[in-house]
Amino acid sequence: MSSEATGMFIAETHTSAAIWHYRVEKMILEGKTKYQTYQICEVPRFGKSLFLDYNIQTSLMDEYIFHECMSQPAMTLHPNPKKVLVCGGGEGATLREALKHNTVESATMVDIDEELVDMVKDHMKEWHQGAFEDPRTILLHTDARQWMVENKGANFDVVLSDLPNPHEDGPAQFLFTEEYFQICADVMSEDGVFAMQAGSANENYPECMVSCIKTLENMKDTFPYVAGYYGLVSTFFQPWGFVLASKKYDPLALAVEEIEKRFAARGVKNRYYTPRYHQSVFTLPEYLIEAYNRSARVLTDSEPFAWTA
Amino acid sequence: MSSEATGMFIAETHTSAAIWHYRVEKMILEGKTKYQTYQICEVPRFGKSLFLDYNIQTSLMDEYIFHECMSQPAMTLHPNPKKVLVCGGGEGATLREALKHNTVESATMVDIDEELVDMVKDHMKEWHQGAFEDPRTILLHTDARQWMVENKGANFDVVLSDLPNPHEDGPAQFLFTEEYFQICADVMSEDGVFAMQAGSANENYPECMVSCIKTLENMKDTFPYVAGYYGLVSTFFQPWGFVLASKKYDPLALAVEEIEKRFAARGVKNRYYTPRYHQSVFTLPEYLIEAYNRSARVLTDSEPFAWTA
Amino acid sequence: MSSEATGMFIAETHTSAAIWHYRVEKMILEGKTKYQTYQICEVPRFGKSLFLDYNIQTSLMDEYIFHECMSQPAMTLHPNPKKVLVCGGGEGATLREALKHNTVESATMVDIDEELVDMVKDHMKEWHQGAFEDPRTILLHTDARQWMVENKGANFDVVLSDLPNPHEDGPAQFLFTEEYFQICADVMSEDGVFAMQAGSANENYPECMVSCIKTLENMKDTFPYVAGYYGLVSTFFQPWGFVLASKKYDPLALAVEEIEKRFAARGVKNRYYTPRYHQSVFTLPEYLIEAYNRSARVLTDSEPFAWTA
Amino acid sequence: MSSEATGMFIAETHTSAAIWHYRVEKMILEGKTKYQTYQICEVPRFGKSLFLDYNIQTSLMDEYIFHECMSQPAMTLHPNPKKVLVCGGGEGATLREALKHNTVESATMVDIDEELVDMVKDHMKEWHQGAFEDPRTILLHTDARQWMVENKGANFDVVLSDLPNPHEDGPAQFLFTEEYFQICADVMSEDGVFAMQAGSANENYPECMVSCIKTLENMKDTFPYVAGYYGLVSTFFQPWGFVLASKKYDPLALAVEEIEKRFAARGVKNRYYTPRYHQSVFTLPEYLIEAYNRSARVLTDSEPFAWTA
Repeated sequence: MSSEATGMFIAETHTSAAIWHYRVEKMILEGKTKYQTYQICEVPRFGKSLFLDYNIQTSLMDEYIFHECMSQPAMTLHPNPKKVLVCGGGEGATLREALKHNTVESATMVDIDEELVDMVKDHMKEWHQGAFEDPRTILLHTDARQWMVENKGANFDVVLSDLPNPHEDGPAQFLFTEEYFQICADVMSEDGVFAMQAGSANENYPECMVSCIKTLENMKDTFPYVAGYYGLVSTFFQPWGFVLASKKYDPLALAVEEIEKRFAARGVKNRYYTPRYHQSVFTLPEYLIEAYNRSARVLTDSEPFAWTA
Repeated sequence: MSSEATGMFIAETHTSAAIWHYRVEKMILEGKTKYQTYQICEVPRFGKSLFLDYNIQTSLMDEYIFHECMSQPAMTLHPNPKKVLVCGGGEGATLREALKHNTVESATMVDIDEELVDMVKDHMKEWHQGAFEDPRTILLHTDARQWMVENKGANFDVVLSDLPNPHEDGPAQFLFTEEYFQICADVMSEDGVFAMQAGSANENYPECMVSCIKTLENMKDTFPYVAGYYGLVSTFFQPWGFVLASKKYDPLALAVEEIEKRFAARGVKNRYYTPRYHQSVFTLPEYLIEAYNRSARVLTDSEPFAWTA
Repeated sequence: MSSEATGMFIAETHTSAAIWHYRVEKMILEGKTKYQTYQICEVPRFGKSLFLDYNIQTSLMDEYIFHECMSQPAMTLHPNPKKVLVCGGGEGATLREALKHNTVESATMVDIDEELVDMVKDHMKEWHQGAFEDPRTILLHTDARQWMVENKGANFDVVLSDLPNPHEDGPAQFLFTEEYFQICADVMSEDGVFAMQAGSANENYPECMVSCIKTLENMKDTFPYVAGYYGLVSTFFQPWGFVLASKKYDPLALAVEEIEKRFAARGVKNRYYTPRYHQSVFTLPEYLIEAYNRSARVLTDSEPFAWTA
Repeated sequence: MSSEATGMFIAETHTSAAIWHYRVEKMILEGKTKYQTYQICEVPRFGKSLFLDYNIQTSLMDEYIFHECMSQPAMTLHPNPKKVLVCGGGEGATLREALKHNTVESATMVDIDEELVDMVKDHMKEWHQGAFEDPRTILLHTDARQWMVENKGANFDVVLSDLPNPHEDGPAQFLFTEEYFQICADVMSEDGVFAMQAGSANENYPECMVSCIKTLENMKDTFPYVAGYYGLVSTFFQPWGFVLASKKYDPLALAVEEIEKRFAARGVKNRYYTPRYHQSVFTLPEYLIEAYNRSARVLTDSEPFAWTA
């Protein structure tokens, strides 16, 4: 009758190695936009959680880890981030993290899925926490890549690329390529900092992340500093990878004291990306270095990454 | 991304042999009453479906099969059913089937879960089809067994027992016992007909059904005629068992022509329990007879059936 | 640690409506032939069971039901079956059932998968029960359709087509077509009887079965008598469909007494297809008749059935 | 037919939040000892993997991570580890890692499950790599706690506690308590180092790990230095926690250069616990510190940890 086996689940295909069945205690909201289906539901221990196309995106338990990783290293590295661009970032939490820095004068978020963001505004307040109403926010609903092409020279200090994984034949494949990264660079100021979510950082499926690192490293003239890093996202059942690319500042040279100073000056308080933890976040395990050596390749529009289960 | 493996499912523990994952295409309504949790959702091929405590109850695809089996053999067998009692039967479809017979002057439904029936009224109209508004209907929300004890001698022509399975330690255990059946008999007229849902009729788990047959057979003075029968309920992934017990009329003696005549006279049209199919419905496969011989026992309040996975 | 949810399972995609997780208590043998992967394992309540390409085929609990249905109605209908052909039938149990009739002088089984049959000989003795060693048996490993083309005029009294479902793009697609049925007819004697497994007989997925009926009915000159029938196969979680086509004898005209007489004369004892049950087996539920009217079509080599989940 | 949904899986209940279905490509060996059931199978991407009681234990993909974490920090911290004790450690890989240090003169492994270790010797050579045949190895099959009680004063330089999680009512509950840790201390030399696997280090279920830290910290007179650390075990779908407790040496004071020197002198080469990575391994994320503050408690024989899903 009521056993552990019985219940409602959302099944997500991890890789060929496993299918994960997340338990749904309560369905809060379900719908479909032009681009994706969504479920907001209560998962035991995780709390309120968002699924897109039946893949978990974020839960209240540890959304701060993903979103601090998405925003804080890049924001902190820039000595004076005034103008920020978020590509994607539907939940508004990457935006929220960027706005924590009181240096910010304007934060533009470009997310193509207006219906989803409208839903988020009403039903995921724990994520955006009012970020969409911040007077510094400019919210646009259009294709991020195309918008950047049209806004070349916009001089953003920080660009945060919080986009879906590059699934085979999916729309995000061309948002993980050298051409895309160049378009990002072209809307950045001369000392701009770029960060992106780059896929799984587990040993089982690191190919996307290490190829993102290699691709950005391949743009040495544009980005002399490139560093992979990761966050321990329990909701994803795996460490999650990010890459930072920087035109002028070296993330590995940032001292704990300097981070502390910047946080204090800008009014930033974090739960995961803390000054003492900076070094660990940027220290990749050997298996990622092995994977880099074994399987990283430069991703291009003609040979993009094809994420498959 | 979107594969067969990925999606939302309700997992139901069948027996130790299997867990069934029903795909949920769309959640329509979810809630919790004092007695049970419910989900109404769209299942591919099945259409709108109801789950109680994460066990499927009924789907639009073939609810008519279960509910015709629940009502029609007993209603048809009685030559002039005027007064009918439905114990349980939350969806209102057993009631609907009984009301098809224009001989009926009053149909009393006693279902303890008022919240569920209220929900059904609004959200499962395809099931009750207005049966709750029928002027002949009397709807009560109280314990069916207790109500019958208090209404001994009420002279119902037909009693239909459409109650949950007798799960171990569950509230329905004492609604599948000789004592309960006697209480039913005591509210029936002298030529009354009783029918009940009796659990799975598959070879894997027939113990409940064959014990219900044996228990009713054990009451020969009350019910000289007892017959098991079954319906092919695709939604349950198994044939489903029922038992009919009758004070005066023999279901196996009912001729096709007589059924046709009664249907015509009473304005009854069925999709599953048709005159030509009567005989098949009451012809049990050998494995049920073997199971009866091997494992049937008389169920009593002191040793009730304990349904376990 | 040990809960109902935890364990080993074989997951079978039923249709888009559900995925079934059969519990594997113990793996007995696992392997791969040129044509398919197989697992023999213990399933609780079902006992020893065979899976091919992760779809359950048969279990000790009720293999007799499938195999009696596969063989007995056709064998019984023929007044003197001497020469029998089994197409497919790897487990040897269809053969076993045919050999029960002591009228049989030779039984030819043509199954393309020699490796599987060799495995069955050693590891599934409960199925074949020595049938492969019967002196009347001729066992061939080649393509059944091609073999029949080459053996036109062979004068089999009974042909039993026990072949895999016609999966989209699978090899069995052309073994469920009018052309195939004609090839079968051409190896049959003038009063030959043909029977086939025809897929699910549940309400959810009856399209294959009813199209097989319609296709055989379309060959009225060859087969004046065509009748669908079904068995309650608990292992498959659904009733299973078969079709019988006959050149001279009408299965619906076979009286109980005649069946009894033939069984006695030929030394046949069945557990499922018993004389008293003949009529029920051949009485299709209305939903199959509705499905026939709604969706049956003549299957041909150019437009075969495409079984999809 | 063959879809991602269809196949063989071992389902492991993670917590109430999720059930993980590991895909089994091929079953290599399956059995049951007095203490547990086991499966050795091929999992896609993970390779050969061991499950005990349907919970994954280790896979070839990243067994080195778990086993280096289990052995290397403690072994390296001790300036001259000659005598080592492994409690549990069935696969022989913790033993293998300890033996890498050429300072070792004897390594005693006490694992109660002789049948499992015998199976491992034959079928999991990739794990032990001959460690059981090493002349320095002493292999015993008895209760580790009881054995240590009887061998008080044995003067082990390093004790490695590689035991099952303390499941509710399971035998390992009393191997995660202050009394057990004291028994370990009593078989250690005056400058001995202790390390243990301590359960999940994810945000979802850190209660066991942080309670192990607190319990060992509560023994300040015995263990002045206590440090939690973790490894990124992709096979477990979560970071995994360990605790080191030391009578004399401070793990956090160990410099990269000193680690390099010791590795060189002792002939140690690691893939995960490398000198440069030492610091990261011992730097716990904030969420573990929050969990420690929120929920850690001293575990005792009278109030042990009760691991529940």
